[in-house]
Amino acid sequence: MNNYAIHHIPDSEYAYPLNGSTLRLILKVAKGEKFKEVSVLWNNKYDFAKRRNFSRMRKLCSDGLYDHYVCDLTGADVRFAYIFLLTLPNDEELYFSEEGVTREYDFKHGYYTFFQFPFINGADVIQVVPWAKEAVVYQIFIDRFKRGDGEKDDTYITQPWERVPGAKDYAGGDLKGVIEELDTIREMGFNALYLTPVFCSPSNHKYNVTDYTKIDPMFGKNEDMYALLAAAHERGMHLILDAVFNHCDESNPLFADVKEKGRESEFYDWFVVHGDFPQKYDAKTCNYEIFADCPYMPKWNTSNPKVRQYLTNIALTYLSWGVDGLRLDVADEMAHVFWREFREIVKERYPNALLIGEVWHENNMYLGGDEFDGVMNYKLQKVFADYFASGLLTAQEAADKINRVLMCHRRQTNEMMLNFLDNHDTPRFLRQCGENESCLRAGLVALYFSIGVPCVLYGTELPLTGDGDPDCRRTYDRAKKPRHALFLRELSRTRKFLPDGEFYAEAERGILALVRENGTERVKAYFGKTETRGDVIFEFENVRLVKESI
Amino acid sequence: MNNYAIHHIPDSEYAYPLNGSTLRLILKVAKGEKFKEVSVLWNNKYDFAKRRNFSRMRKLCSDGLYDHYVCDLTGADVRFAYIFLLTLPNDEELYFSEEGVTREYDFKHGYYTFFQFPFINGADVIQVVPWAKEAVVYQIFIDRFKRGDGEKDDTYITQPWERVPGAKDYAGGDLKGVIEELDTIREMGFNALYLTPVFCSPSNHKYNVTDYTKIDPMFGKNEDMYALLAAAHERGMHLILDAVFNHCDESNPLFADVKEKGRESEFYDWFVVHGDFPQKYDAKTCNYEIFADCPYMPKWNTSNPKVRQYLTNIALTYLSWGVDGLRLDVADEMAHVFWREFREIVKERYPNALLIGEVWHENNMYLGGDEFDGVMNYKLQKVFADYFASGLLTAQEAADKINRVLMCHRRQTNEMMLNFLDNHDTPRFLRQCGENESCLRAGLVALYFSIGVPCVLYGTELPLTGDGDPDCRRTYDRAKKPRHALFLRELSRTRKFLPDGEFYAEAERGILALVRENGTERVKAYFGKTETRGDVIFEFENVRLVKESI
Repeated sequence: MNNYAIHHIPDSEYAYPLNGSTLRLILKVAKGEKFKEVSVLWNNKYDFAKRRNFSRMRKLCSDGLYDHYVCDLTGADVRFAYIFLLTLPNDEELYFSEEGVTREYDFKHGYYTFFQFPFINGADVIQVVPWAKEAVVYQIFIDRFKRGDGEKDDTYITQPWERVPGAKDYAGGDLKGVIEELDTIREMGFNALYLTPVFCSPSNHKYNVTDYTKIDPMFGKNEDMYALLAAAHERGMHLILDAVFNHCDESNPLFADVKEKGRESEFYDWFVVHGDFPQKYDAKTCNYEIFADCPYMPKWNTSNPKVRQYLTNIALTYLSWGVDGLRLDVADEMAHVFWREFREIVKERYPNALLIGEVWHENNMYLGGDEFDGVMNYKLQKVFADYFASGLLTAQEAADKINRVLMCHRRQTNEMMLNFLDNHDTPRFLRQCGENESCLRAGLVALYFSIGVPCVLYGTELPLTGDGDPDCRRTYDRAKKPRHALFLRELSRTRKFLPDGEFYAEAERGILALVRENGTERVKAYFGKTETRGDVIFEFENVRLVKESI
Repeated sequence: MNNYAIHHIPDSEYAYPLNGSTLRLILKVAKGEKFKEVSVLWNNKYDFAKRRNFSRMRKLCSDGLYDHYVCDLTGADVRFAYIFLLTLPNDEELYFSEEGVTREYDFKHGYYTFFQFPFINGADVIQVVPWAKEAVVYQIFIDRFKRGDGEKDDTYITQPWERVPGAKDYAGGDLKGVIEELDTIREMGFNALYLTPVFCSPSNHKYNVTDYTKIDPMFGKNEDMYALLAAAHERGMHLILDAVFNHCDESNPLFADVKEKGRESEFYDWFVVHGDFPQKYDAKTCNYEIFADCPYMPKWNTSNPKVRQYLTNIALTYLSWGVDGLRLDVADEMAHVFWREFREIVKERYPNALLIGEVWHENNMYLGGDEFDGVMNYKLQKVFADYFASGLLTAQEAADKINRVLMCHRRQTNEMMLNFLDNHDTPRFLRQCGENESCLRAGLVALYFSIGVPCVLYGTELPLTGDGDPDCRRTYDRAKKPRHALFLRELSRTRKFLPDGEFYAEAERGILALVRENGTERVKAYFGKTETRGDVIFEFENVRLVKESI
């Protein structure tokens, strides 16, 4: 047996409460390692030396390197001690505890070496935000979606609507335009919106904010935001705003004060300035901390408690308007201590506010229940792109990678990941598919079938195409019939009937299958020609969803 | 190469800031795996696609399964992207990134797959509590240490001082007795005290509290505590109190209120009661959550924010008296959310308050910088016991296990672990050594030589012996000459001159060696006969500390 491949970490995504009385355990072993049985010996930690319960684990999925075994323990006592028992094909038994893999285990002194989940404290159990579980999100880049206000001062507009915009163009979209399209969006099956930033900012994307609580006049007035919220909520729709707290615009009054007064400014230590005054040397370099290589985007110093309070209060203001969730821009470059405080304060008042961090990389340091509910699922997006769009991966590789992404998180967290094929920062998925709309649709099936919150970029229904920023932010052609609208509607309808339980991927004879199952039924989404057993509940071209009883 | 053995987790004990500009990276590979070179390619994350710095890693230590390579990166830019480059003996090069081990690496699209430490935010850098770095702690179980108050009502005393106490005996020790011995303790080289609980409680150990802010009359008055603090601080000594927040005594007025009024009590949900009223069925079982199998110790419900506030305020009261640190009893059974709030509130006012959790098991879920500074180092204690006392381990096994314990934590955290050979909950180390005082002294050398805070149980200097609780809590025989007092004093003196940097263990020709080194010198503690190179700076029997230049 490969001892290097045996992994378990107590009180982590390998061992966590599903609710107040059930502990989920995951054990990773080398892929293909043969066992007669994998099981858990467990009891409350104070009785473990005397006697143990025995529970079999079952193999849930494989990720290329590891097989994942799972088991749910429910006890009247919520103080768990456990060790794993591995029975080899020759009946040899091995124990796996905090001591590692051993041939013998000293139960009498187990108190030193068993794994433990010391107590399921209710406040530590990760809760799925109820509306997130049902949410299907439509992402809108406001300047390019629709102009609804014909009266506004539109001298800022730099391009006719029908032209493909450049990086610095303004096309004229606004909040009134979003309100006008709400019913159409809803008819496509969406019940939530994610808007890229809407507050005062001297750019079309508005990721460099000058006033955090005033809607940019290009997009409307604060009243338009309140009207949008009212109209959305009337329709049972939820709204997610983009909260850009990592940095602001250099013309933000607080940074401007530092530029003017230097160390004398009361906001000097609200930023990180290496010198008496902030100095911009050129378009790329400066003596203060910034976002990326953009001196026009000075970074807030979230090590400063005053800044933390200031930014948290801004979030509370949004939520007081009725905003339902926040997508937190460049969340990974901000202090963990900020996010922990932020979550505690926000969730105390708004427990159902969905908090989604922007993190492109390994992300479970943000997802222990103390920072974000979920993150933008770039890891899953990359698998979808590499399989459905560019075809870099075999079905087996795709299944392996999907499972690896899933097994990084607790199940409740997976339900709150924001899944997507593309967004305002990536090339359009259709472009990645070489304009092949069948590939796009297969990707959409995978997106809607997966555990987590599907998020679709505006115009996917037309479909819009384009390379990365700014080309993925093209204007929406209102004259065009959105030929995938019904497809999206059908996907969101189908999604409602998928079994609510496990989700994993597998490859069957070279065909990728995504699987949803609960205790009694299983639905598989096959991406390729396959013989079907059971009821086909959705089908197009070579993609089909098949339901079977277990 | 064994791909299963390659491990790195970004933003963890494998990748953490040592200070505001230096990132420490650790890479684990299979023990004995041969490389021509192990290195890191790194840059700020926004320039990584264009160009990379190259830094060699060096092998720090081995833990039986893994070799640990280390490298410190210092950059003007504190936003790190990095991947590892493994050069095999045949010059083949392998990359290790978030994608796993690959033969090629697509730098152009590295933004998806490099490891990152997105930004060193000062507030996230773990700080070593300054006094902890120098601390050498003497642990006192008050009832058994010394009676200083001849005037008090002593009708509670159940045994003459010279008798070996039973589980429920009272011997009469008190705070005045501690004050009287402060100079003696200090002369043995100790500069800090850790007192087991001192507050009102109907037991000799006082781990079941009825009044959290009143000194138990058996031990004295609150004025005695203030006097002890003043006397300690005058002598440059720090004081750690035992904070028992997981549970209280059933006669605690708040629980008594629940017993009387049931669900009508305003404190009903301050505990976890499964029923209208708490019911004790017998000495072991009840319908409410408790500590261990002790219905007389009802557990506080730290999922309740009011309870969190109540307990945190108690801690603030202790600290307002001048208490320097808290040892947090049964910390692992309390809600993480409690400890996160607790730390934030406590450290905001008392940044130098040392917070030590009682955790016997895997503990890095508490040591990410958001809960405790350190924990009671049971993992290290077990290696010391299994090597120095019972001799279960070979030198190689002991070195491996010591390194495994060390590599579970960030360096700053290791500096704040409370290390010990024994305490009030374990058999005396001398008993574990079969009464062999040479073994005890070797263990003490290891304790003082190790990174972390050494903590010695009262009476070790006599030495006292005894089995587990209650026999390890014997009375201190004041007539006896403490024959190891000078040895302890010499150890604490020697400790001051150890290099401040890396600490690890190794086995040389069957002899255990502990190693301390900085950039210029190295001190090795050899536990066994060995040829020495360099200056011997401490020696007894077969144990010697040898200093050499690097």
